[in-house]
Amino acid sequence: MTKPLNIGMIGYGFMGKAHSNAYRKVSHFFPELEYRPVLKAVCARNEEKARAFADTWGYESVETDWRKLVERDDIDAIDICTPNNMHHDIAIAAAKAGKMILCEKPLAMNAAEGKEMVDAVEKAGVANTVWYNYRRIPAVTLAKQLIEEGRLGRIFHFRAQFLQDWTISADLPQGGAALWRLDVNAAGSGVTGDLLAHCIDTAIWLNGKITSVASLTETFIKERKHTLTGKVEKVGIDDACTFMCRFENGSLGNFESTRYARGHKAKYFFEINGEHASIAWDLHDLHRLQYFDHRDDSIVRGWRSIHVSDGDQPYMKHWWVPGLAIGYEHSFVHQVADFLAGLSSGKPTGPTFRDALETQCVCDAVLKAAQSGQWEKVGCGCC
Amino acid sequence: MTKPLNIGMIGYGFMGKAHSNAYRKVSHFFPELEYRPVLKAVCARNEEKARAFADTWGYESVETDWRKLVERDDIDAIDICTPNNMHHDIAIAAAKAGKMILCEKPLAMNAAEGKEMVDAVEKAGVANTVWYNYRRIPAVTLAKQLIEEGRLGRIFHFRAQFLQDWTISADLPQGGAALWRLDVNAAGSGVTGDLLAHCIDTAIWLNGKITSVASLTETFIKERKHTLTGKVEKVGIDDACTFMCRFENGSLGNFESTRYARGHKAKYFFEINGEHASIAWDLHDLHRLQYFDHRDDSIVRGWRSIHVSDGDQPYMKHWWVPGLAIGYEHSFVHQVADFLAGLSSGKPTGPTFRDALETQCVCDAVLKAAQSGQWEKVGCGCC
Amino acid sequence: MTKPLNIGMIGYGFMGKAHSNAYRKVSHFFPELEYRPVLKAVCARNEEKARAFADTWGYESVETDWRKLVERDDIDAIDICTPNNMHHDIAIAAAKAGKMILCEKPLAMNAAEGKEMVDAVEKAGVANTVWYNYRRIPAVTLAKQLIEEGRLGRIFHFRAQFLQDWTISADLPQGGAALWRLDVNAAGSGVTGDLLAHCIDTAIWLNGKITSVASLTETFIKERKHTLTGKVEKVGIDDACTFMCRFENGSLGNFESTRYARGHKAKYFFEINGEHASIAWDLHDLHRLQYFDHRDDSIVRGWRSIHVSDGDQPYMKHWWVPGLAIGYEHSFVHQVADFLAGLSSGKPTGPTFRDALETQCVCDAVLKAAQSGQWEKVGCGCC
Amino acid sequence: MTKPLNIGMIGYGFMGKAHSNAYRKVSHFFPELEYRPVLKAVCARNEEKARAFADTWGYESVETDWRKLVERDDIDAIDICTPNNMHHDIAIAAAKAGKMILCEKPLAMNAAEGKEMVDAVEKAGVANTVWYNYRRIPAVTLAKQLIEEGRLGRIFHFRAQFLQDWTISADLPQGGAALWRLDVNAAGSGVTGDLLAHCIDTAIWLNGKITSVASLTETFIKERKHTLTGKVEKVGIDDACTFMCRFENGSLGNFESTRYARGHKAKYFFEINGEHASIAWDLHDLHRLQYFDHRDDSIVRGWRSIHVSDGDQPYMKHWWVPGLAIGYEHSFVHQVADFLAGLSSGKPTGPTFRDALETQCVCDAVLKAAQSGQWEKVGCGCC
Repeated sequence: MTKPLNIGMIGYGFMGKAHSNAYRKVSHFFPELEYRPVLKAVCARNEEKARAFADTWGYESVETDWRKLVERDDIDAIDICTPNNMHHDIAIAAAKAGKMILCEKPLAMNAAEGKEMVDAVEKAGVANTVWYNYRRIPAVTLAKQLIEEGRLGRIFHFRAQFLQDWTISADLPQGGAALWRLDVNAAGSGVTGDLLAHCIDTAIWLNGKITSVASLTETFIKERKHTLTGKVEKVGIDDACTFMCRFENGSLGNFESTRYARGHKAKYFFEINGEHASIAWDLHDLHRLQYFDHRDDSIVRGWRSIHVSDGDQPYMKHWWVPGLAIGYEHSFVHQVADFLAGLSSGKPTGPTFRDALETQCVCDAVLKAAQSGQWEKVGCGCC
Repeated sequence: MTKPLNIGMIGYGFMGKAHSNAYRKVSHFFPELEYRPVLKAVCARNEEKARAFADTWGYESVETDWRKLVERDDIDAIDICTPNNMHHDIAIAAAKAGKMILCEKPLAMNAAEGKEMVDAVEKAGVANTVWYNYRRIPAVTLAKQLIEEGRLGRIFHFRAQFLQDWTISADLPQGGAALWRLDVNAAGSGVTGDLLAHCIDTAIWLNGKITSVASLTETFIKERKHTLTGKVEKVGIDDACTFMCRFENGSLGNFESTRYARGHKAKYFFEINGEHASIAWDLHDLHRLQYFDHRDDSIVRGWRSIHVSDGDQPYMKHWWVPGLAIGYEHSFVHQVADFLAGLSSGKPTGPTFRDALETQCVCDAVLKAAQSGQWEKVGCGCC
Repeated sequence: MTKPLNIGMIGYGFMGKAHSNAYRKVSHFFPELEYRPVLKAVCARNEEKARAFADTWGYESVETDWRKLVERDDIDAIDICTPNNMHHDIAIAAAKAGKMILCEKPLAMNAAEGKEMVDAVEKAGVANTVWYNYRRIPAVTLAKQLIEEGRLGRIFHFRAQFLQDWTISADLPQGGAALWRLDVNAAGSGVTGDLLAHCIDTAIWLNGKITSVASLTETFIKERKHTLTGKVEKVGIDDACTFMCRFENGSLGNFESTRYARGHKAKYFFEINGEHASIAWDLHDLHRLQYFDHRDDSIVRGWRSIHVSDGDQPYMKHWWVPGLAIGYEHSFVHQVADFLAGLSSGKPTGPTFRDALETQCVCDAVLKAAQSGQWEKVGCGCC
Repeated sequence: MTKPLNIGMIGYGFMGKAHSNAYRKVSHFFPELEYRPVLKAVCARNEEKARAFADTWGYESVETDWRKLVERDDIDAIDICTPNNMHHDIAIAAAKAGKMILCEKPLAMNAAEGKEMVDAVEKAGVANTVWYNYRRIPAVTLAKQLIEEGRLGRIFHFRAQFLQDWTISADLPQGGAALWRLDVNAAGSGVTGDLLAHCIDTAIWLNGKITSVASLTETFIKERKHTLTGKVEKVGIDDACTFMCRFENGSLGNFESTRYARGHKAKYFFEINGEHASIAWDLHDLHRLQYFDHRDDSIVRGWRSIHVSDGDQPYMKHWWVPGLAIGYEHSFVHQVADFLAGLSSGKPTGPTFRDALETQCVCDAVLKAAQSGQWEKVGCGCC
């Protein structure tokens, strides 16, 4: 018999939907798990919208005050799907209440906040994770496996891009429920925290610590109407950010993100060049991994386009048959599955808050370097 | 308030899983639908396996005799996920019992059986559909839309392939629950009914009637051990089938299917060449549609790789945001959504049994032409 | 010191240019060859145009009567670049005059003509070749090498396409110097002799004899103005041709060609599926070979995109450095180089007239099958 | 009648071959040009090798002292194909002798040298160009045309990579005729001058002035045996270089080059993101241009893969027919054709020495920034 894990979710936006779907599906495709998520409550200030969301997804109850949710005895785990500026307070309260926490990324508005959150969950001894879901795209997990098997050898280069094009219009406002990612007060930063944070999490996971960075940011559209105030206000976020870095293992990094790259809806791309082999991946074709192995016979060497859909590739035995792709949403299912398995095994599943703090420290260093025009060391002493 | 639609499913294999997932998800992503599937009962001869399946997917009850299921008053719709040789009897019994029917493809073992099934459902006046799910891959639905908008002009060519490579080993047995597709008594034919049927359904839907065919079939491995008898027996299915055809609209068709195309897990590919524009699609990258428009400025003409993930593209407003792909399983969700919408609107949603009979007639003609070595007309008078 | 090989070319059109460039370049890139082509004379009925061509390419003299050219003592080899209907008479006269012959493809208007040409060159004992140049695209030559190394194992499928889109407009006339390919009297057939002949030559070279065929042809535009008569005349060529076939080695073939495939300028594509490995190639990206090897570790199996530009790949040590592509014209340089090397070694270099006759026999059978609507055996007793 | 342009070439390596081929071919494919190159003399210290080269390519004479060549009255133009450390002295002597100059890239060892060279050719009033040949790949020239037509609108991003993998082995020596590019004394820098210089030239041509840079360089293999001394010596070049920059037009740049990117033979890639459209190109598939136009109907928007081989695309009317690709070497033919056309028109054809000096200044700033760890302004006051 499976054990229930009662979920209380805060927020009902895009991520609320992605997480709810993951909780709903995980038991069907991973029936061997000991724990089974139960959608106990969803919380949002707008009661009507929260209730509609609860009806659609089958949440048993609705709250309008997150503090009340956090204190409910029938909740085991708090899922934080709010804008970034609320992560800190909710997480610390949840930890104090002894709840497990699944927090949307980035961890916090900055590393200082993040440090306090790490301290809170570690002091409380509660399970915790941050939704850097791209680790669980099977092709990305396969990349991790290939690296751990030593197939690449010494690493020389890591490059990543996260390119979008949805904010090019100057008529797009900032702020509010739909566009809080453009409002620096809600988001903390622009593409750095929203998009590069994903790239950095993957990079550290695959290639180890980043030690120093130099960067360049730009805000192409300087003023936008604010949805909440109705006034044209200064845009405080970075529209684009490029940074170069050094990794502890001696390799070089090149990262770039923007929301002004016409033609790219969500091109999250990374490539790793090793002595013996290279790997590349693109979110636009998330079911494929590109792999080049120099040890192949020289006349038939070439980049292999691996269709990651076989049962011996990560997670895929849980789904369909070879050749039949899964999509974006499945990465969340995998993260829930791994989190639940971690509860049973007692081994915490990454990325934990502590892992995510490391990403936060890189983000902070990147933003600092953009201001200083100099190389900045990564690390606030906290990681 | 939504109305329940009580489902009784027969079979619990690969397709049972795909359909169950579709019933489970549809209300979350299409909350506006009037009807909501309820997983009332699953039926299989092996009670233990049926019960395990019911537990995983949340079916309320289990049956071991399909005739009993068909007669249950609390069932609105029968979903047939059995091997092909059982479709006919179940469908006719279900129709007589006044149940709606959702039947796996191909419709039947041959057109004669299919004709009786069509007669039964039409006489009974029950809603009916066949799971030619690929029509509901958003990129394929978009192809339909582009054709209906007249973007292609006069059509010259339709070509399709369904290439797999999973039966190359001579050690693979035939028959039994896992490998009934290799047993002619259970499947009726090999790649023709299993794979080409998909291609033909799409072709007729997109390009109209097929009027005559010439074909070539081969069974590369002549004998395989039979799982049920334990003996080496003659292989009765076609391992590969190629056919040429003429469409009613004057265009030419070229179809090929095999399970011996090393390197292709499930390459279902089609291409349509029109006077003004061409379209191509490949299941391996199901979220993309290739489109060439000759009316583009000559210096910048080229095949466009359309990432079908925007809200104004078929079905996609129900899912995530631009750039984030969905996968194979979603085609079943869409089919359920359309079927349910059809119940509300009163307009039957294709492919109906009658539509699927037309595909069956082409399959029959293809198999006949392979025997005769001549061109064969399509149609048994039934379609 | 190199020995001169005096060339007399008949025709100055597209192929005259391609061959002249090959003769000009071969000594620069293959300096080790014993023979060196000398552009002795070009022949065409229009003296002015012939002279302009001679000036551009450095031909030493001009003839307006091919019979005179064939009889000149200072000519070693006749290069036939005329429309197809002249190949037969010129080749036989040249053979009688003891000249080597390099003839454009297809060999002849039909197999009967071709048979006489083969007899003539074999009786005369003169070196002879037909310009099926695609064998000498390095990626295609590499395919041959991989097959001969046994990497593919038993072959199951060979499929090829040659798709163009340049005759879709009904306003395009037929006949004359520029458009003789649309005039059945000059060309003999349409896409069958012009395009499929290339596919068939490659297929036989890579996969052995074709034994029987069934086919389908269509002429989409039934009448076109004739450039020479100024009148609207019936179109006698096949605009499109699809055929299925069996190879002697037990594999199945699927071939298709058309000039009505919008979006394809010159898509000559072939794919071979073997037990262990598969190969695919596309003229649009002629410097790449796609290769799938099932013996790769299962988790990193995928189609390899081989950039054929390394020194250990066919012909490439003669050109640039890895990564730098060569193009279409180089296939002709390679054919000249191999022909010249064959003169030194005494081993004739294929495709000889006899090789090309085999292709002609398949073309004849394809056209016959299109008429008969039945399977036709390949072979006139001549091959 | 065409006028001869007598060429004296210094060096006979890879570039000597590429240039000689260009001089040989240009009159065949651009017969309308007033000037026709004549291969008058080739110069190299090793007389035997120079003579062999002259024999192969048809140079009329051989010199072993470049100063003598420069002074010969029968030479109109000096082509400098030597290692970088000789460009300066030869160019200045040639200018003083009143010769036109075609100099390999990069212009010089540094901007100071380059400045003197520009002064020399401008004072002498001689035609001059630098072989940044990639501008003349038809797809790249088409990119320029599209930008000039205003199709992209405001530019936000320019990114470029030049990735190779041929120096990963620590056993590879440095220096000597074959490997002078690894010897800082002969080359001046590593990937910056060899590879990034190409990217910078294209970037400035397409996107305007670069105003400031920050960069990162690395030498992965610190010591290599020197071919000339036989001793293990420190490696002075940069194995890899990444830089970020700002352009005068407000766009951001991201450039990366390395010879340690396993799997990339010569991946010269660039992408430009504009308000309305984006463009991308890759040397590995040099005949294609990727183009995305946001003004396309939303449901059929996608990256177009343009096969640049039609007569209305840059340079292509001089070659074959649509669908048939040309290669790397043709960029040199185009550069010669444009240079010769410039002599006739009196309008100098870029890149001139002055244009190339601007690229040199960026290279200098990049190398300086790598040392300083800070942003550096581009420009020595000279450009």
